[in-house]
Amino acid sequence: MKKTIWNNIVKLREQSPLVHNITNYVVMNNSANALLACGASPIMAHDELELEQIISICSATVLNIGTLDSNSIKQMVAAMKYSKILNKPTILDPVAVGATSLRTECVEKIISAGTPTIIRANASEIISLAGSQITSKGVDSTASTVECYQHAITISDKLNCVVSVSGDVDLVISSDKIATSHNGSKQLEKVTGMGCSLSAIHGAMVAVCENPFIAALSAVSLFGICGEIAAENSNGPGSLQVNILDKLSNITELEFLERVNIEIKNR
Amino acid sequence: MKKTIWNNIVKLREQSPLVHNITNYVVMNNSANALLACGASPIMAHDELELEQIISICSATVLNIGTLDSNSIKQMVAAMKYSKILNKPTILDPVAVGATSLRTECVEKIISAGTPTIIRANASEIISLAGSQITSKGVDSTASTVECYQHAITISDKLNCVVSVSGDVDLVISSDKIATSHNGSKQLEKVTGMGCSLSAIHGAMVAVCENPFIAALSAVSLFGICGEIAAENSNGPGSLQVNILDKLSNITELEFLERVNIEIKNR
Amino acid sequence: MKKTIWNNIVKLREQSPLVHNITNYVVMNNSANALLACGASPIMAHDELELEQIISICSATVLNIGTLDSNSIKQMVAAMKYSKILNKPTILDPVAVGATSLRTECVEKIISAGTPTIIRANASEIISLAGSQITSKGVDSTASTVECYQHAITISDKLNCVVSVSGDVDLVISSDKIATSHNGSKQLEKVTGMGCSLSAIHGAMVAVCENPFIAALSAVSLFGICGEIAAENSNGPGSLQVNILDKLSNITELEFLERVNIEIKNR
Repeated sequence: MKKTIWNNIVKLREQSPLVHNITNYVVMNNSANALLACGASPIMAHDELELEQIISICSATVLNIGTLDSNSIKQMVAAMKYSKILNKPTILDPVAVGATSLRTECVEKIISAGTPTIIRANASEIISLAGSQITSKGVDSTASTVECYQHAITISDKLNCVVSVSGDVDLVISSDKIATSHNGSKQLEKVTGMGCSLSAIHGAMVAVCENPFIAALSAVSLFGICGEIAAENSNGPGSLQVNILDKLSNITELEFLERVNIEIKNR
Repeated sequence: MKKTIWNNIVKLREQSPLVHNITNYVVMNNSANALLACGASPIMAHDELELEQIISICSATVLNIGTLDSNSIKQMVAAMKYSKILNKPTILDPVAVGATSLRTECVEKIISAGTPTIIRANASEIISLAGSQITSKGVDSTASTVECYQHAITISDKLNCVVSVSGDVDLVISSDKIATSHNGSKQLEKVTGMGCSLSAIHGAMVAVCENPFIAALSAVSLFGICGEIAAENSNGPGSLQVNILDKLSNITELEFLERVNIEIKNR
Repeated sequence: MKKTIWNNIVKLREQSPLVHNITNYVVMNNSANALLACGASPIMAHDELELEQIISICSATVLNIGTLDSNSIKQMVAAMKYSKILNKPTILDPVAVGATSLRTECVEKIISAGTPTIIRANASEIISLAGSQITSKGVDSTASTVECYQHAITISDKLNCVVSVSGDVDLVISSDKIATSHNGSKQLEKVTGMGCSLSAIHGAMVAVCENPFIAALSAVSLFGICGEIAAENSNGPGSLQVNILDKLSNITELEFLERVNIEIKNR
């Protein structure tokens, strides 16, 4: 699997897939740069009049509800519909779902329009999505990966999609497999939009790898390792944000294979 | 007072308050990162349907009119109303007020909906707010702190709020006290949104310090010192933007106490 | 000409012109920082109610359709109208024109409202603008400068404006002259919004240099050289983004004159 993941990283650099994003205003620049750094070509577009044409030329669409409003909800629902019609993979990042009714309803509307290929979220968001109560702390998680484990399985089974959870340990769940990934750094929590960048990279990986479970695991592993190396070489969140982009673009096979730390088991 | 301010910095890191922002598109990423760097937890949210819920879980709300339009004006007015009802502190950053009638009217509408706990602005904006004519140079100040001194006092008295002015010298005014802060660097003017980041940090400080005068002075002092250290170690505005985030997160008590340069007197 | 361009760079630092931008959400922060770094003063404002006042106090307006929608199209058309009435120079960056009908129609509407002083685009966008079919790859070019050469001349003649094309070689075309610029770095393609920053700098240059052909060539040359020096000192796209801002602010006459590589001929 480690070699397969590295091959996906190489494919991404070679194929440079076009990845469409409707994402929040906070992270647009970062997400675009994260996609470019790992080899993909980002496009941010949201007007309903161009969504069908944009999605038709792209290899995947990433939906992120971070700074949602009535306009962007309609746009994300439309993007999901067009993706379904055009048979294009989608990533859903349900930022701070559960913190407000609007966010919960927004996610319900998007999911009603089409099943995301992968849901990428933190533990709090997963618990909320599964219908359980959890005290929200805005965009940050108040739960550990272990606490959301069963909820993540519930969502994967209910929606029939891959669920990718970021946290102290990263978790990727498909209908028949569970993977844990042990790379990353606590310091990434001090940079805004790192989870959003990771969601964007899920979009890039699903564009070059047909199996969404392996695509998600590839994204999680690449981002975790680059984040870990970047954090070791940073003086704080400012330099970390810079260094992770550098590392996403210049990580070598040797660096990757030395660090990759994943476990996969059948469910 | 110096020790009190340092204690506020420590509290911020320990309590990690949730700070809500309706801010401009230019600085959203920066403001979120500045909040994270100094220990707070940012959330950017603007849809009226979720504002009440967002504000209810947050410790403070920061309103910034930088890229205002008819939608965001309504949202900021609504946020001010909910903050008043929920008894939550608010920071108002009236970016480029006076440059256009729309900006002047926007600020009037927001202030009619509720009194901000702190107004954080540059000298030009303060002079404009006080109803005096001043030649606008967009978002930058064309006046010195001395020139706006009386105007800042006028606004503080009229609105019964703390006024925090950034410039060659920083100035914090309450109903009975005036503080000046002499840290900072001229180079910060060459990075967009530094004033906006400072406003956001006022929101973080007011969340951990009940006295808004001391909260404002803590924000001004922390940001000025970190900016000053960052500027000394930067080759230009690109590295300054990175270094200030690093320093906000790793400044030590020793570094702080060595540099803090404030004067407080009774009015 | 080399000395003239350097003088424009110096004028920019001395005069610090106010440059108005209606640009896309992805690059707002970067474009503002690029303008500040080279000495200009940026303002981002889009509400139709303040556009006339904003444009009247600014020296140039930059329009960028990157994340267009029905609102921003109206705003950009209004900005072009006011610029025409107020006799202010305008830069148009037709991001990803040709990728969707909406983008093509948007550019037509803007151009109907007034002729941009300079169109700044990549080769694919120029070919599209000239009415030829080209396979779109979103915001990135799929054509070389040579391939768009005749199309750029066609557009310059048809619209009677300067056309500035970025690519493997940069090209600036006026009614009677053609310039090529051979600075820059392939690595700039790995940072989002570098073309948008360049467009913004065209706005700054046209504010201090009456001849739009020389203004465009000054912007292209300054940005290319700074990008080239920055790229030589970067480990990847993260540090490149930082270093180019530093270099825009601290480039010396010696550094500039050693590298500048332009050719000008009569058409």
